[in-house]
Amino acid sequence: MKTYDVVGVGNALVDVLSHCEDAFLAETGIEKGIMQLIDAGRAVELYGAMGPAQEISGGSAANTIAGLAMLGARTAYVGKVKDDQLGAIFAHDLRAMGAVYETPLAPKSLAEHETGRCMVLVTPDGERSMSTYLGVSESLGPDDVDPEMCAGAAWLYLEGYRFDGAASVAAFDKAIRATKGAGGRVSITLSDPFCVNRHREAFRKLIADHTDLLFANEHELMALYETDDLEIAMARVSGDVEIAAVTVGARGAHVVTPSGRSHVPTAATKVVDATGAGDLFAAGFLAGLAQGRDLAHCASMGCVAAGEVISHVGARPEADLGTLMKERGLWAR
Amino acid sequence: MKTYDVVGVGNALVDVLSHCEDAFLAETGIEKGIMQLIDAGRAVELYGAMGPAQEISGGSAANTIAGLAMLGARTAYVGKVKDDQLGAIFAHDLRAMGAVYETPLAPKSLAEHETGRCMVLVTPDGERSMSTYLGVSESLGPDDVDPEMCAGAAWLYLEGYRFDGAASVAAFDKAIRATKGAGGRVSITLSDPFCVNRHREAFRKLIADHTDLLFANEHELMALYETDDLEIAMARVSGDVEIAAVTVGARGAHVVTPSGRSHVPTAATKVVDATGAGDLFAAGFLAGLAQGRDLAHCASMGCVAAGEVISHVGARPEADLGTLMKERGLWAR
Repeated sequence: MKTYDVVGVGNALVDVLSHCEDAFLAETGIEKGIMQLIDAGRAVELYGAMGPAQEISGGSAANTIAGLAMLGARTAYVGKVKDDQLGAIFAHDLRAMGAVYETPLAPKSLAEHETGRCMVLVTPDGERSMSTYLGVSESLGPDDVDPEMCAGAAWLYLEGYRFDGAASVAAFDKAIRATKGAGGRVSITLSDPFCVNRHREAFRKLIADHTDLLFANEHELMALYETDDLEIAMARVSGDVEIAAVTVGARGAHVVTPSGRSHVPTAATKVVDATGAGDLFAAGFLAGLAQGRDLAHCASMGCVAAGEVISHVGARPEADLGTLMKERGLWAR
Repeated sequence: MKTYDVVGVGNALVDVLSHCEDAFLAETGIEKGIMQLIDAGRAVELYGAMGPAQEISGGSAANTIAGLAMLGARTAYVGKVKDDQLGAIFAHDLRAMGAVYETPLAPKSLAEHETGRCMVLVTPDGERSMSTYLGVSESLGPDDVDPEMCAGAAWLYLEGYRFDGAASVAAFDKAIRATKGAGGRVSITLSDPFCVNRHREAFRKLIADHTDLLFANEHELMALYETDDLEIAMARVSGDVEIAAVTVGARGAHVVTPSGRSHVPTAATKVVDATGAGDLFAAGFLAGLAQGRDLAHCASMGCVAAGEVISHVGARPEADLGTLMKERGLWAR
């Protein structure tokens, strides 16, 4: 048996969550509903303009790993923080969920950057608009990837946002080789349509060459295949990967395989803060795979986990996900 | 007209909020429902044992000032953080509410201490148990008090917890002299029955000599007068101060003056997290005084503000307090 059900690789970030009206987004030049990369200067400027906030550990793949750990999966995470207070918060919150987290810290002496953070502005409709200062998370490179850890993974889980770092492709390659070389499989999430537009060729190559399981929402999948027709995009992806899990917001999720397609609905949930919806869908789905469930069951577990995280502020689960799965008959452990 | 409705002095802290079962308190030796001071070593040990947390600016008097600022009062705050990430978070969250905050930062070079923090463990009944590492907030001294700021205050608001710092009495004295010398008045909150037990004589002297308005809950007031009879304690306090605002949990609050006593009830509220209840009661009460309301009206405003803050995690208000006051007919601005 493998040591880990899932090893995740991503941008290690602390979320700075604040509420605002739509007018504030317009005034500060923030595009609604997406993730924009910002530099340190813009981070200071934007933080100064924002209202009071709360800090909760985030990072897309780290949110997924936290959800998986809560669901009893054996997990590890690879992502870079600094030896500073926000870095200590990030590491604590992940380890406290039961995940293994051993990526070397960027040293205090590295003056130019701090632990990365994502300023999340939540509008009254529950939509989140993210401005990310990557900080030291951007510098994650091959030296941070432990091949032995990846060789112990049943599934590797790669965060698409990580393509924004210069040494990312090399780090991903090393992790993929170690995982596949030991018989593990590779999953990736597209993260964001604009991220897909920035790195479409790299994504396509990674998907065609190495990906067994693709996570995407409808907008990301259409961006990948440069179409505005979801049907066309789903037809295309079925030729590229063994499994594609495609979320369609409140309408649930499609599971697309070369042999066909299934759809699962979501339960009605009030959206308080959409941050982490895709991350927790992936957590529920991968937890299902770790338990040997069929794909539709995995997608239902994903929808339940996503429904929990959008019901409160912050991208980490608060209610016990295992209990929620049991209440919906999705859990037999 | 005075520059400030209220100038607050207190321990500047960031709250580290986490949920736990009662058994965790027993295992880690935390006494339920009170605030215990801990050193840096114990802080590391306890944080390592805690589950995932979220960080929200706190500090008792700072919570009061944040609530007052939200209610349109002109406010300033005096309390010490360091030039570190948690210090920046604290300063941001206070200024973003509209409060003036200019206390000099403890420098980065001060290696032995960081910005203070309060580990708040919330049990399923909504009660909070606090373990506070004071860090640099403990070192607030007379040099940090700007006499001109205090002279501009209609009300000075002193946090009882501050008696735990060595230079506190001198800092309080300086602030009181400056405030009273310019015709302002002095209020103080007892903060915690154990804090009262640690510093009873200093509290009594301050109350007898300088205090116009005393905030206390029933347990703190009984500790002050070393009695287990609230009636006796309220009779005693009416001889010591012009106004005593005494909260009695879900039963509301008493306002005690030399000429008599009135009682106001609370609205029923589900207690999600009791952190900040007393702080926000004081905010509502002082906001009423700033608007020239009678004392029973002030106490009702205090109960509404306290009811908001216990309805969610964290000690800073989330819903607009002015709107809540309007809905209850307590607001005419």
